[in-house]
Amino acid sequence: MKELHDAIMADGYGIGSDIVKVDMFLNHRLDTKLLNAMGREFYNYFKSKNVDTILTIEASGIALAIATATAFGEIPVVFAKKHPHEELDKIKEKGEDYTASVYSFTHKNNNVITVKKRYLEKGSNVLVIDDFLANGEAAEGMINILKQAECKVAGIGIGVEKGFQPGGKHLRNFGYDVKSLAIIDAIDNGNLVLANDN
Amino acid sequence: MKELHDAIMADGYGIGSDIVKVDMFLNHRLDTKLLNAMGREFYNYFKSKNVDTILTIEASGIALAIATATAFGEIPVVFAKKHPHEELDKIKEKGEDYTASVYSFTHKNNNVITVKKRYLEKGSNVLVIDDFLANGEAAEGMINILKQAECKVAGIGIGVEKGFQPGGKHLRNFGYDVKSLAIIDAIDNGNLVLANDN
Repeated sequence: MKELHDAIMADGYGIGSDIVKVDMFLNHRLDTKLLNAMGREFYNYFKSKNVDTILTIEASGIALAIATATAFGEIPVVFAKKHPHEELDKIKEKGEDYTASVYSFTHKNNNVITVKKRYLEKGSNVLVIDDFLANGEAAEGMINILKQAECKVAGIGIGVEKGFQPGGKHLRNFGYDVKSLAIIDAIDNGNLVLANDN
Repeated sequence: MKELHDAIMADGYGIGSDIVKVDMFLNHRLDTKLLNAMGREFYNYFKSKNVDTILTIEASGIALAIATATAFGEIPVVFAKKHPHEELDKIKEKGEDYTASVYSFTHKNNNVITVKKRYLEKGSNVLVIDDFLANGEAAEGMINILKQAECKVAGIGIGVEKGFQPGGKHLRNFGYDVKSLAIIDAIDNGNLVLANDN
């Protein structure tokens, strides 16, 4: 997607061999115009899929999810919440939430993600949206929760995919329709190298 | 605001004397249509204030902030990040962020909120947006950060204010223009009692 590629070239940068920083427009400061354009791009790609709900994960996925939900005609968004792993037993005991364990490569720890059962209706056709895809743990956790809720996965829409990490490959190998609006193939001396075919 | 009042009456509820639950439409499941209408309401109220930036706080403030930023003609949003208080020294040592301490009455602990210095331009005219206002700690922390950044506070837009807690009164006493789209005056036996004049 040209506008996103332009923003990445203008303001994104890499640290070391695997850290991609795009917080000028995607996950600390938010470029509202760009996010709305990204939402319309997801609509154009997934519009034949009869999407009725969007699922994302706090915090920075929420902005892209709302922009996308607006492009789909103001459909509802549900965002998964993150909790420290130590809270899993307490959450399970209450029984109100679907839960999945998600390993964070950034923080090198396990988190629990939760969605209140009453907010995912059985049979819903859900588009998973996230700002980033690296190892795919967050997306896999959301898909796990959608299976528990007996919802369908209409597709997976990603802002920026790190093509040199395996998340996108795994999700596509499992047969999911993954649309990434930009794929970063490598970090070369602090510069982000974009794949050409997206 | 009528649509918000209707949603609160239909799906909101109280627990005990001070917990307000509106997570069906405002902070777990998100009613995209309602959020966009709330954004337009903030635009109508603050449109003469020359707002150029919106500041909110993760996580659930982000959805309302993006909806509001879209109504203001797609101006940028910055969201403050929350960190455990133990990280304050490390964050200050790096020197990249404005910081403020925020006490959480919900979790009974202190958090640090941060905004990268480079994302708040001196002299910006900033509208503070949050989904909830109770004791006002989060809003006060954001105002503190805006002062450090030498930005102006154009106003404070709140989705749901708990009128029986002191945050709104404090902010108005300090002279800030606070617009709450719904004010809950009391919890009566699990039912939310709305103020009439908003």
